[in-house]
Amino acid sequence: MAKRKMILDLDTGVDDSLAIAYALADPEVDLIGIVSSYGNNLLDVCAQNSLKLLELLGHTDIPVFKGLPHSSTSDHFDVMQVSKDIHGNNGIGEVELPDPQRSVEEESGVDFYIDAAHKYGKDLIIIPTGPMTNLAAALKKDPEIAHLIGNVTFMGGALTVDGNVTPAAEANINQDAKAADEVFKSGLPLTMVGLDVTLRTLLTKKETQQWRDLGTKAGKAYADITDFYIDAYYNLDIDKRGCALHDPLAVGVGIDPSFVQTISLFMRCEYDPDSPFYGRTVGDNAKLNDPNPNVKVAVNVDKERYLKVFMDHLTNLFKEH
Amino acid sequence: MAKRKMILDLDTGVDDSLAIAYALADPEVDLIGIVSSYGNNLLDVCAQNSLKLLELLGHTDIPVFKGLPHSSTSDHFDVMQVSKDIHGNNGIGEVELPDPQRSVEEESGVDFYIDAAHKYGKDLIIIPTGPMTNLAAALKKDPEIAHLIGNVTFMGGALTVDGNVTPAAEANINQDAKAADEVFKSGLPLTMVGLDVTLRTLLTKKETQQWRDLGTKAGKAYADITDFYIDAYYNLDIDKRGCALHDPLAVGVGIDPSFVQTISLFMRCEYDPDSPFYGRTVGDNAKLNDPNPNVKVAVNVDKERYLKVFMDHLTNLFKEH
Repeated sequence: MAKRKMILDLDTGVDDSLAIAYALADPEVDLIGIVSSYGNNLLDVCAQNSLKLLELLGHTDIPVFKGLPHSSTSDHFDVMQVSKDIHGNNGIGEVELPDPQRSVEEESGVDFYIDAAHKYGKDLIIIPTGPMTNLAAALKKDPEIAHLIGNVTFMGGALTVDGNVTPAAEANINQDAKAADEVFKSGLPLTMVGLDVTLRTLLTKKETQQWRDLGTKAGKAYADITDFYIDAYYNLDIDKRGCALHDPLAVGVGIDPSFVQTISLFMRCEYDPDSPFYGRTVGDNAKLNDPNPNVKVAVNVDKERYLKVFMDHLTNLFKEH
Repeated sequence: MAKRKMILDLDTGVDDSLAIAYALADPEVDLIGIVSSYGNNLLDVCAQNSLKLLELLGHTDIPVFKGLPHSSTSDHFDVMQVSKDIHGNNGIGEVELPDPQRSVEEESGVDFYIDAAHKYGKDLIIIPTGPMTNLAAALKKDPEIAHLIGNVTFMGGALTVDGNVTPAAEANINQDAKAADEVFKSGLPLTMVGLDVTLRTLLTKKETQQWRDLGTKAGKAYADITDFYIDAYYNLDIDKRGCALHDPLAVGVGIDPSFVQTISLFMRCEYDPDSPFYGRTVGDNAKLNDPNPNVKVAVNVDKERYLKVFMDHLTNLFKEH
């Protein structure tokens, strides 16, 4: 079987780091590039983190592109204190990795999206796990790509549960709700992997210890990075039992949708900054009776099977690096 | 097959009127009583409407009980102007029906719930299509009934779409969000038939004309009552295509759950009156990883099949009265 072409759009970030490893480890995926976003840290820091992790995992062949440095409705971006608390000041749990040998590409992430959409069409899967800013910009520059791309499986939003920034807003959507609304309404075939399911897939130090026990550089680095995140979940009382596998779950679902139960909806995102519902991802009442909704929303997950595949993938990868 | 014992809890109401007809017409149902609620009109008006409709449909054998006259968090109830606009000043589309011969029962609706739960246990289905006040009061008086009753299928709430009073709140839940939260947390096996699905099942004047053409009293009265509602939907710009079959859909799903696709959740209801999220029915994040959620939430509906059964049932009933 031909491998699926995948682009990750990351604000790297601890769980973004896990998403990179999952994508590299999955035999069905050809990771053709990473587009960087602001979010868990500044754009440049996130891009450098992606390069460092790719090199740690032996993949200097994969290009990293710069996306946009701030949301579509602002002119700057500051890292939120809570992001530093959860992901560390450097975004990867205060773990120091060597400066990367490879540089960020000259081509912009937005143009890379457009080129890849035209080149690969339905074979292309895009996995945004940060703000939707880059994807919305690509759709604005070339709306036709909405009908070319095979699937966009994004980590973000909350439909059946509370958000984690406000009762309405999940963190990624909260960064740029206007961009999310534009992506929802673009006609792109979308799969939403939101808090509805990611809060159900928890990782503990029992699993990270297995990576550390491998005795490899990657095993140790990933165990340390992820333990910072598990500690933050504990100390900030997000979840005492473990950390949520937000971003790597989106990668898993992008490859194998059968990990989740989905419902089909036309969705919209509330982007009025003065509304208490800012950032809410919800069915569009005006389109409730229209045929062929474009968003599949994950509402339940086979967490045992996912966690097994996740551990098999990452352990196999870390063994060799 | 033994018929299922059913109690309706109604704030009658145009769509409540349709719910009565559906329950009487369904061969699998033994309607053992109607508990009255405030809501679309005052408690006493709603109780009288139920008695009038039962007599119109030849069912003076079915008792009507009085529930509570106002919400669990207030000491009075005034009918909202929008309720009068949608259901008419008399609750049944300004259609005049004869005063009923039968009176409301002496026993309270709350005690009737408790007695029926102990008597029929798992054979009992309860269909609340108004506020949850009566059911919450019964659970408070005898918490054990939560583990006796077969199923409660209620019309109310909105999980995947906006509410119809605020973006958070659906009208029934909005009347008494505290009572709804208590019912959610009681352990009762619940099925939620909310705006997620009821806004998808629309009735038009093409269908009501079929009832009028029957030439019977009930056919004419129900056509007039429902046309008032369809006109209100049009004039208030709720839906120009027809009226939503909110309450009778809950009756249909209570009898045949295969009309809807459901997802399982532990739910809570926001009842802080000062919150913009007041009345929101949402998954309880704290219980997201607990086993055996007690609420099945309808998120999609086979509207063609439902509408066919609905029309077959009501037309057959109206033919004979």
